[in-house]
Amino acid sequence: MSEPTSPVRVAVVQFDPQVGIEKCVGNLRRSLELALEAVKGGANLIVLPELSNTGYFFSNRQDAFAHAEAVPDGPSVQRWIDFAREHNVYLVAGLAERDGMRLFNTGVLVGPDGFIGKYRKAHLWNLEKLWFTPGDLGFPVFDTPIGRIGLLICWDIWFPEVPRILAQQGADIICSLNNWVWTPPPLFDDAGKCMASYLTMTAAHVNNVFIAAASRIGEERGARYLGCSLIAGTNGWPIGAVASADRQEILFADVDLTSSRSAPIWNNLNDLHRDRRADLYDQMLGYTQHPCLPR
Amino acid sequence: MSEPTSPVRVAVVQFDPQVGIEKCVGNLRRSLELALEAVKGGANLIVLPELSNTGYFFSNRQDAFAHAEAVPDGPSVQRWIDFAREHNVYLVAGLAERDGMRLFNTGVLVGPDGFIGKYRKAHLWNLEKLWFTPGDLGFPVFDTPIGRIGLLICWDIWFPEVPRILAQQGADIICSLNNWVWTPPPLFDDAGKCMASYLTMTAAHVNNVFIAAASRIGEERGARYLGCSLIAGTNGWPIGAVASADRQEILFADVDLTSSRSAPIWNNLNDLHRDRRADLYDQMLGYTQHPCLPR
Repeated sequence: MSEPTSPVRVAVVQFDPQVGIEKCVGNLRRSLELALEAVKGGANLIVLPELSNTGYFFSNRQDAFAHAEAVPDGPSVQRWIDFAREHNVYLVAGLAERDGMRLFNTGVLVGPDGFIGKYRKAHLWNLEKLWFTPGDLGFPVFDTPIGRIGLLICWDIWFPEVPRILAQQGADIICSLNNWVWTPPPLFDDAGKCMASYLTMTAAHVNNVFIAAASRIGEERGARYLGCSLIAGTNGWPIGAVASADRQEILFADVDLTSSRSAPIWNNLNDLHRDRRADLYDQMLGYTQHPCLPR
Repeated sequence: MSEPTSPVRVAVVQFDPQVGIEKCVGNLRRSLELALEAVKGGANLIVLPELSNTGYFFSNRQDAFAHAEAVPDGPSVQRWIDFAREHNVYLVAGLAERDGMRLFNTGVLVGPDGFIGKYRKAHLWNLEKLWFTPGDLGFPVFDTPIGRIGLLICWDIWFPEVPRILAQQGADIICSLNNWVWTPPPLFDDAGKCMASYLTMTAAHVNNVFIAAASRIGEERGARYLGCSLIAGTNGWPIGAVASADRQEILFADVDLTSSRSAPIWNNLNDLHRDRRADLYDQMLGYTQHPCLPR
């Protein structure tokens, strides 16, 4: 696989896309304005939130269908491709994907040479289950000139298997596209972080991988989004500040992606990946469902 | 399986056992004094740290061997059994186990009716690899009148597979025995928590399980221990305060163990356990080692 060009300046964009067919053009325009601001800030890799061109809260399947487009031939993906080519950057963005009669909550990765790949959200949150099909592409990692990039989307990170599988495949950085909403209270702790901030930090820490998490703000049809975007280093701690709960922001971090490929400097005897006891984990697959829940 | 008697008052004991054969009797006595204080505080389930009777930092295998005892016939385990019988409580404690020529970093669970079971640490930290054998008992969950109890020891929680496997077997509470030490800096954040605090919180949150984590304080042969014991609720957040980095403390929490058996109240469509995409996780077992590391 190719060696990464490091350091890379990563930017995550936190903003407020709004649902509604008539608003999609504005959402897309706004995402590109903010991506341009990130480019001006020197970013090489820019991460936009989940469903960044459509907003999140569709009213029904028909509504979701009307917001969706083909990948990579749809208009939003084509605009993102043009942008990445024009500015010689990598861009990750979420959208509603239409594939025949099926809809997916999808993230795309595009770069200076065009479309690179897509990921379809495997773990669907709440009403998404009523319109989207669960992702059927596994957890791909894309090899690029700047490093190996994996994608996950929002509720996915509640399943530690996802960042684990991405890291086991050698991902240097995981781009995490989010519309973080309600979790069992409290929503935030005294440090102003939400539980998803900590899920991101600990997933980065135990997998020795960077995670660039772009979340959204604002409200839609009664749902409040939590912001709290962050870029976690391979040690798990945020690089710089964690974003606010309610302001449009762009976070930047200069990361040496190659550092994810070295064993973390714990000591001479431990390595987070090699220490896995895969011999004891077989039973994980034996349980597709909690044994105490109704079947 | 039996239904739990809830609520249960859980206590985690944070103290400073010190290594050295001549100190083992004092460590054990101290552990029992503190356990008695927990009993007087109303505790039904008491968790002591990893290697609570021996201290942690053995100088070599011979030294570790001299500190070890048989389970359950050794003197420390017998004293803990007597204590649990006398006070009608459940007690979890860590010790060095000798089994023939092999040594294990072991946790035992004892109760009013005597010895219940043991867990042998699967993921060994640093120099432990030079004297202990990696655990060979998998990740057992013990059914008791107060609920289903799983054990893990320190470095184990760096492997999200461990709490996942315990929870998938229906553990209501995970007793986490620790001697938390150095992690890649910073050791603590502004909130006074260490990364292990967050590993505990997020493991509880994504698995909808209680985690009672007893850590130790003090210094031994140049190693500084981090304290930060905590009891995490099924929502992941600490119940009450997280312990200090350097003071002897007992934390209490009244927990309704049955609440771990209900699906968390996310919404009508999501359940943390049922939402797992075991169909996509097969590839986890394909990687016993990070593909980028030397083989």
